[in-house]
Amino acid sequence: MSAVAPSQIIDALNWRYATKAFDASQVIPPATWKSLEESLALTPSSFGLQPWKFLVIEDKALRESLVPHCWNQRQVADCSHLVVMAVKKELTVADLDAFIARMVEVRGGTADALAGFRKMLVGVYDQGYMTTQWSKSQAYIALGQFMLAASLVGIDTCPMEGFVPAKVDEVLGLPELGLTAAVLCPAGYRSADDRYASLPKVRFAHDDVIIRR
Amino acid sequence: MSAVAPSQIIDALNWRYATKAFDASQVIPPATWKSLEESLALTPSSFGLQPWKFLVIEDKALRESLVPHCWNQRQVADCSHLVVMAVKKELTVADLDAFIARMVEVRGGTADALAGFRKMLVGVYDQGYMTTQWSKSQAYIALGQFMLAASLVGIDTCPMEGFVPAKVDEVLGLPELGLTAAVLCPAGYRSADDRYASLPKVRFAHDDVIIRR
Repeated sequence: MSAVAPSQIIDALNWRYATKAFDASQVIPPATWKSLEESLALTPSSFGLQPWKFLVIEDKALRESLVPHCWNQRQVADCSHLVVMAVKKELTVADLDAFIARMVEVRGGTADALAGFRKMLVGVYDQGYMTTQWSKSQAYIALGQFMLAASLVGIDTCPMEGFVPAKVDEVLGLPELGLTAAVLCPAGYRSADDRYASLPKVRFAHDDVIIRR
Repeated sequence: MSAVAPSQIIDALNWRYATKAFDASQVIPPATWKSLEESLALTPSSFGLQPWKFLVIEDKALRESLVPHCWNQRQVADCSHLVVMAVKKELTVADLDAFIARMVEVRGGTADALAGFRKMLVGVYDQGYMTTQWSKSQAYIALGQFMLAASLVGIDTCPMEGFVPAKVDEVLGLPELGLTAAVLCPAGYRSADDRYASLPKVRFAHDDVIIRR
């Protein structure tokens, strides 16, 4: 693996910002988008369960119809690709078994050989651990990873919690799929007019957020 | 900014895995660690509020004492640097004001000029939006970003929810700081003996997790 220089990561994180205005005329090249999509599918999650689906919305009219349900934030319409990190409203034991089946499919062996692992998973599940909120937290792993990945390849993003979940879900047909939107992330290119692009980044001082023990 | 090739991100994500056994003899070089720490401090968050602190624990004895509170997972002791993503148990309006003050400090101007922004923040706060769970979700942005950043520079990590928060908090003196551990992330180098390193990664098929609209 060819390592990336640590300074490239810091540069990307300093370059990125929550894009307020996207240039609606620019589209992410297919090869770049393909990699970003692949990075989403590779996101780690607790137990590896991947309690999510990633909606990738390119349709302009559909995105336009989401604007009023997103506090009128134009980013969902003006970006190149809108990603909706959605999670299962209710995880079931069938979801655990689907994951076990996928393990067998990818790694070989039998589901029987994973009986101990399954028992552990079901035990955690039965304790009520895997709530919708827990799944939503997992989706934030994807959000964090995606924003960094995008910035490294020169793509702007805007993490977005400001939306009406019931409305967004309805417009996207998520209830029928047992899904609900956890968080949104428009991706594309900043507009030359976005004055937020040049504002200094506000982070607490390093020694205020890092505690050594 | 020198862009990273999309394939480098995919390579890093395929290289990484939830490290089960770290090589306790290896330490992350200071310059590399400094960048990773800086990447943590640059993590984006909702409204920019950064409702977190990142504990960086190098002390071996302290980490050894955490093992029994982490389901006996040796990674917290055998890694090079243990990161604890902690969040404020209770956000207050004073936290919002500290952020506003930091905005003024970094960008200039006056707090008065940000009165509208403050009013919006306090309005959201008053609706009970900024719960501990919300802060914990924000910490998962840091987790996702950190794991990708580490993998890009050849550092292994293991995201960890399997710990007893009350015990970990107590050992680290977090209650006195009004903090609680959201998630743990040991970082370091995989042991040559970790058989998990060579297992194929289990992810659902691309078309099962990506939904197009």
